[in-house]
Amino acid sequence: MHMTSKTLKDVRPMGRAMTDLHISEGRFVAGPVAGAEVIDCGGGLLIPGLVEAHTHLDKTLLGLPWYRNEVGPRLVDKIENERAVKTSLGLDPALQSARQVVQTVAYGTTHIRSHVDVDTEHGLAGIEGVLATREAFAGICDIEIVAFPQSAMMARPGTVELMDEALALGADVVGGLDPCGIDRDPKGQLDAVFALAEKHGKPIDIHLHERDALGAFSMEEIVSRTRAHGMGGMVTISHAFCLGMTDRAAVAILQVALAEAGIHVATTAPASAPVPAVRELRAAGIVTGAGSDGIRDTWGPYGNGDMLERAMFVGLRNNLRRDDEVELALDICTFGGARMMGLEGYGLGIGDRADCVLLEGETLAEAVALRAPRRLVLKGGTVVAENGRATVSTP
Amino acid sequence: MHMTSKTLKDVRPMGRAMTDLHISEGRFVAGPVAGAEVIDCGGGLLIPGLVEAHTHLDKTLLGLPWYRNEVGPRLVDKIENERAVKTSLGLDPALQSARQVVQTVAYGTTHIRSHVDVDTEHGLAGIEGVLATREAFAGICDIEIVAFPQSAMMARPGTVELMDEALALGADVVGGLDPCGIDRDPKGQLDAVFALAEKHGKPIDIHLHERDALGAFSMEEIVSRTRAHGMGGMVTISHAFCLGMTDRAAVAILQVALAEAGIHVATTAPASAPVPAVRELRAAGIVTGAGSDGIRDTWGPYGNGDMLERAMFVGLRNNLRRDDEVELALDICTFGGARMMGLEGYGLGIGDRADCVLLEGETLAEAVALRAPRRLVLKGGTVVAENGRATVSTP
Repeated sequence: MHMTSKTLKDVRPMGRAMTDLHISEGRFVAGPVAGAEVIDCGGGLLIPGLVEAHTHLDKTLLGLPWYRNEVGPRLVDKIENERAVKTSLGLDPALQSARQVVQTVAYGTTHIRSHVDVDTEHGLAGIEGVLATREAFAGICDIEIVAFPQSAMMARPGTVELMDEALALGADVVGGLDPCGIDRDPKGQLDAVFALAEKHGKPIDIHLHERDALGAFSMEEIVSRTRAHGMGGMVTISHAFCLGMTDRAAVAILQVALAEAGIHVATTAPASAPVPAVRELRAAGIVTGAGSDGIRDTWGPYGNGDMLERAMFVGLRNNLRRDDEVELALDICTFGGARMMGLEGYGLGIGDRADCVLLEGETLAEAVALRAPRRLVLKGGTVVAENGRATVSTP
Repeated sequence: MHMTSKTLKDVRPMGRAMTDLHISEGRFVAGPVAGAEVIDCGGGLLIPGLVEAHTHLDKTLLGLPWYRNEVGPRLVDKIENERAVKTSLGLDPALQSARQVVQTVAYGTTHIRSHVDVDTEHGLAGIEGVLATREAFAGICDIEIVAFPQSAMMARPGTVELMDEALALGADVVGGLDPCGIDRDPKGQLDAVFALAEKHGKPIDIHLHERDALGAFSMEEIVSRTRAHGMGGMVTISHAFCLGMTDRAAVAILQVALAEAGIHVATTAPASAPVPAVRELRAAGIVTGAGSDGIRDTWGPYGNGDMLERAMFVGLRNNLRRDDEVELALDICTFGGARMMGLEGYGLGIGDRADCVLLEGETLAEAVALRAPRRLVLKGGTVVAENGRATVSTP
């Protein structure tokens, strides 16, 4: 069924002139295919599928009764509370991740990178759950899984071994987390992360909330290992709050180092933390993706998986007002994330996978400002959402 | 018609236990009224009408073809571009303000404070337009008009006289703007603002974008004049970016001064500028309201008039995650704005005006996180919006 040929009639790819696009065997093709289903797009804007480059599918509380958040202010409060709540609420990572995926698909996201908790208390339950969801949603949304040591690696013996197992089971990416702030052992954690990546031949994505000089130190350590392991193009630093520090001369030096090492950045553009300046990253040639981070979880009530809304957040946080600037924000939530994740065949060109979203708006900037329900979402040429609703139902 | 008695059956006022509320002659009354229309609220959350405490009704581009923003980065670039664009687009302040009011009412806002441009190029066109809109929407949404010298006061001779005229015509509040940064004459501007307020017996609301020590200086000047003129409770400082400066000891001193002088703060919680910390303002006893600022105008493409979304922005900007913290954000967008504007009969108590919104959500925090279409909006007991749509149509 998903191999049906289609013609998207009267679309404006990336807001350019109206045209027809043709789809066959899940990809865009040059000309019309006999017997193709014709979908009248009414002059709507077409962009490639939105890319959710940083989220936590296993820990959302979507679909559950409201969780009253009374958690303390420190990072460790949130981490410890979450480990406990997973048990007290009996959180099912397969069910919860499926709920978030359905909502995310309805908003036009066709690719997700999800960090998934691995720890000595819950073991690989998260990884197994999200692996099941990835299987269940094959052909609807591509899901990349990062084995993520949320509760620390070196400080909780046994975690490295569990991450090794997770990668053998099918996790795609080696995660990491604040090697100084959380693990108090930057050399230990980063050596372990890069060793796992080398062993499994998989990329790396490290959460780095550490600020100012501390974050810069950890970042330098990641840069040197990326170079030593020849892993340019395969390492992402998520959050990278230290790139938001006030010492912009120090930031400029870090940005040159990241660009030269081929290290990518993922930002969630939080309003209350220092953040990488996306215009500077673009100017420095650093590949940048964006993500929702956790959605309605024990960390906080916000978030909905809408990557057009995230483009707005990137715009608001970076004071992007001009149309070309808003287009940069949207580019980060589409092509930027795709490059960060190394997606094959991403785009609206001939031969690219027919993963795309039909948007309301006269221009790309208006589409971001409006964030109207998505008129149509295709994954590999198959309709997976229409008028803001996914074609699959929420578990 | 708007005098019809109503019973709101099965509501949860402020998320508390389910009850019925009774309305007669536009206000909440203690018991059922014979022949009252019964509205089944299905256990929904009820809050008083949202309060838009800082916006610019006269300058939105809602309803017009997309405006491609190519404006320069400085404040003066935006101000000069806007003055020119008003002419080139033939912007009609009555029509534009009406468009924004209808959209705002659909989101559950029952009170608006709008700054309206007064300058020597466009004279009182903005004031006259928004006065017409206020008249046209009487009974649907209350609109307060600030005579706002967007293009400067002292630096553009004739502006003070125009503001004087605007106040005589019916503007409710005396505006001001960056007495150092824009006017380069803090003494001149602030003396003129307070003289106008004294002459007309009207309150003051001054835009203060000035940062750090400069903003603190202007704030001190506002404090001293507020005390000298006995205007405690009648002065608002909008934006107050200097309260977001890194020198928190200096901020603490300013906050004590504001609280003692009875000066209010309005914030729009922008993600890319330093902002007042709303938890600190609350602790200091400073009345705080929130607003959308400009909506889809020549300054930027964002904004929609949804004050539940603004509560989320206040929450995100101030890192409010716990339920009690999210409730603070919502309180600022309701009771806070109402106190800032000195509204009479605001609330859900017996005798209060029946201005209220029925929300989706198990709790107030969930309502903010969801921002679902508003199920019902009443103004003085009359239905003015249902299921996300205003009962009046958009001009």
